[in-house]
Amino acid sequence: MAFCGEQLARLGDIWLRMLDHRFLLETRDGTIARETFADWMRQDYLFVEAAIPFIAALMPKAPADHRVALGQAIPALEKELELFRERAAVAGVDLTGVRPSFVNHAYVQFLIATAYSKSYAEAYTVLYVAEKAYYDSWMVVRAGLDSGSIWYPFVENWTSDAFAGWVGYLEAQLDALAEQVGEAERGRMAELFELTARYELAFWEMAAAGGGWPGLEGGAQ
Amino acid sequence: MAFCGEQLARLGDIWLRMLDHRFLLETRDGTIARETFADWMRQDYLFVEAAIPFIAALMPKAPADHRVALGQAIPALEKELELFRERAAVAGVDLTGVRPSFVNHAYVQFLIATAYSKSYAEAYTVLYVAEKAYYDSWMVVRAGLDSGSIWYPFVENWTSDAFAGWVGYLEAQLDALAEQVGEAERGRMAELFELTARYELAFWEMAAAGGGWPGLEGGAQ
Amino acid sequence: MAFCGEQLARLGDIWLRMLDHRFLLETRDGTIARETFADWMRQDYLFVEAAIPFIAALMPKAPADHRVALGQAIPALEKELELFRERAAVAGVDLTGVRPSFVNHAYVQFLIATAYSKSYAEAYTVLYVAEKAYYDSWMVVRAGLDSGSIWYPFVENWTSDAFAGWVGYLEAQLDALAEQVGEAERGRMAELFELTARYELAFWEMAAAGGGWPGLEGGAQ
Amino acid sequence: MAFCGEQLARLGDIWLRMLDHRFLLETRDGTIARETFADWMRQDYLFVEAAIPFIAALMPKAPADHRVALGQAIPALEKELELFRERAAVAGVDLTGVRPSFVNHAYVQFLIATAYSKSYAEAYTVLYVAEKAYYDSWMVVRAGLDSGSIWYPFVENWTSDAFAGWVGYLEAQLDALAEQVGEAERGRMAELFELTARYELAFWEMAAAGGGWPGLEGGAQ
Repeated sequence: MAFCGEQLARLGDIWLRMLDHRFLLETRDGTIARETFADWMRQDYLFVEAAIPFIAALMPKAPADHRVALGQAIPALEKELELFRERAAVAGVDLTGVRPSFVNHAYVQFLIATAYSKSYAEAYTVLYVAEKAYYDSWMVVRAGLDSGSIWYPFVENWTSDAFAGWVGYLEAQLDALAEQVGEAERGRMAELFELTARYELAFWEMAAAGGGWPGLEGGAQ
Repeated sequence: MAFCGEQLARLGDIWLRMLDHRFLLETRDGTIARETFADWMRQDYLFVEAAIPFIAALMPKAPADHRVALGQAIPALEKELELFRERAAVAGVDLTGVRPSFVNHAYVQFLIATAYSKSYAEAYTVLYVAEKAYYDSWMVVRAGLDSGSIWYPFVENWTSDAFAGWVGYLEAQLDALAEQVGEAERGRMAELFELTARYELAFWEMAAAGGGWPGLEGGAQ
Repeated sequence: MAFCGEQLARLGDIWLRMLDHRFLLETRDGTIARETFADWMRQDYLFVEAAIPFIAALMPKAPADHRVALGQAIPALEKELELFRERAAVAGVDLTGVRPSFVNHAYVQFLIATAYSKSYAEAYTVLYVAEKAYYDSWMVVRAGLDSGSIWYPFVENWTSDAFAGWVGYLEAQLDALAEQVGEAERGRMAELFELTARYELAFWEMAAAGGGWPGLEGGAQ
Repeated sequence: MAFCGEQLARLGDIWLRMLDHRFLLETRDGTIARETFADWMRQDYLFVEAAIPFIAALMPKAPADHRVALGQAIPALEKELELFRERAAVAGVDLTGVRPSFVNHAYVQFLIATAYSKSYAEAYTVLYVAEKAYYDSWMVVRAGLDSGSIWYPFVENWTSDAFAGWVGYLEAQLDALAEQVGEAERGRMAELFELTARYELAFWEMAAAGGGWPGLEGGAQ
């Protein structure tokens, strides 16, 4: 079995917890509290902004035949940010002046630290898992959310054929990279696969439960 | 007022929460559960290991007159790791095979991401705050812990004259750096000062309350 | 006077040597040897490829309002590479299997090392000078080259209104950054301004005189 | 055959040119012009200073069992700098206010760019080749230089048992890394092996022939 399939099987428990997360199920069922969804939007907007430097930081390490695709991912994320701003305007959500929650800040640090200090194949693993998690998560929402919902354009964005194609491309490339590296590096890739899945799950948990910093809940934030 | 004093005053609430943390007070009073302290040792051992690459990553950005002191910080941290191993042996604590808790992992990512993507003065801010937090925190413990305690060598390590001198040196250098930079950069330094204080507080909270990953508590970890 | 004007005045001697370089004058006059120009194309193609990771590596350090423009510079460079491939096809020049000359390799290392280890304002200085050097250099060529020359599309590329606008944008941003930083950093920016001008001059010299590695001329290369 | 031996055999021509370089032979024979050797000292002092951040930049990527040895290499280089200062005092050479020559600047950029943008095994290749080149080069000098020469302490430094042990350690580690990586990465390691040998040869050539910047010889420098 290729690397990605193997890892998704190995990490089935975490992956299922992610796809079964009440934030996704309530969004799917249209029962999510408006302010909860708005908070997620505010945090995810910051996260997508931070994903642009993450991808940029991969480029100096990328093999020649990966460069163009990575370069195109950057304007794609800029367009995604536009979708957030457009939906925020429609829903009356203010995206400005937001501070990252603890989980959000931590996840962004993980992206940047990985891009800089790990090998290309290791950092590419994180990119794939983050995108794959979004595809799978929003497919859960798609299964129930009314297409007239003001949140539906998010579903469309992350379950579109274009996005599915991107995730499929990433998977094929990551499988190929995993073939090329030595065993020790493949082990580190597996570790980062799991860590990224954990951060993704933590992000939904934060979206549902709130984003306090440990030791500061109920106090200065 | 110089930069460090100014920031410590501004962030007095977070700093006090940190120094008042039950982990420190119970360690001071000798009432901390042995296993709680052992867990902190296991996590902090990983953190100190990760602080070595953090300091190393600062060196290529350091002004010429900072290089020697940073270079000496690395063997000092190696000696700190030895202290952990020696105390672990005395107390019968196993330091091997430990996975970083969520807060620990996040804090380390913050160090590495900052060292790579921020300016030298910004990253140096994080170094100072982390060291200053340890000095102040262990001074709290020193105020009560019996010098015959098996944990007392940690008190000695982080409240020694040598460590006080190091923290004083860092403070003087950071104050000088803050004088030299422009206002926008000084603003980013203040932000990182606060973020580091938040991570320090989160670390004690994790030490007291346990290190689960959000969404995975009580399940696969 | 703003920073860029000040530096260009200070470095007038190097800048003039660059604009007076025989490679540019012979290209302007249509007397350049075909193989000399073809060699420059082969080397500059590699250089433009390497400039993409350089710009990408700036992005994680960029202030929020610089991100979009930097992101757009990447597809612009991909289009520039296409121009090289298209001209190479027209002129029968083979761009494949080329090794970087010594000066080319060195200049690329300078870009990458600067992007990673220097501050944003310092690395942005290098970006501006490299682009400004190309604009000014190709304006020299424009003054004489027949618009029917097969090399004329290079003139069009680097003297176009769009490129002039990009260089002007970079200059305005760099002047603003130089206002914001402290004096020590502004001094380092001035140093990098000069170093980049020296590398640009060295690149034309290499294009005219050949790209051997020191100590290997006439031997294994 | 292990990786290092294989590469040294493959690159025998460049390696021999390096060991046969007139700078080394004249230093061995005691016929080197005093000012030529002094210029080399001034340039190499800058280079050794820059090697410290290079090694530091490797540390965040290093496997756990490499960390201590890399950390010890930093004080070893500080001691090497002291040797330069001490010899300079004896010989009346002024090491201050020196600008890097073109080749020196380029080589340092290569070190830093490699440490940041290449994998650990690739960057470690550069470290090994640079140290191995110095060991072999100074063994050439040792074969003839009078042990009473004021330059003899350099011979002692780089041909000592301690330095031989360090080079041997690096070789064993690099051979092991080359076993662990995939074929594509091993190919990039071979390329960096050759590039480093070329930079080493270029450095001796610069030491013998002078360090002008291309296009600026005889002019502003």
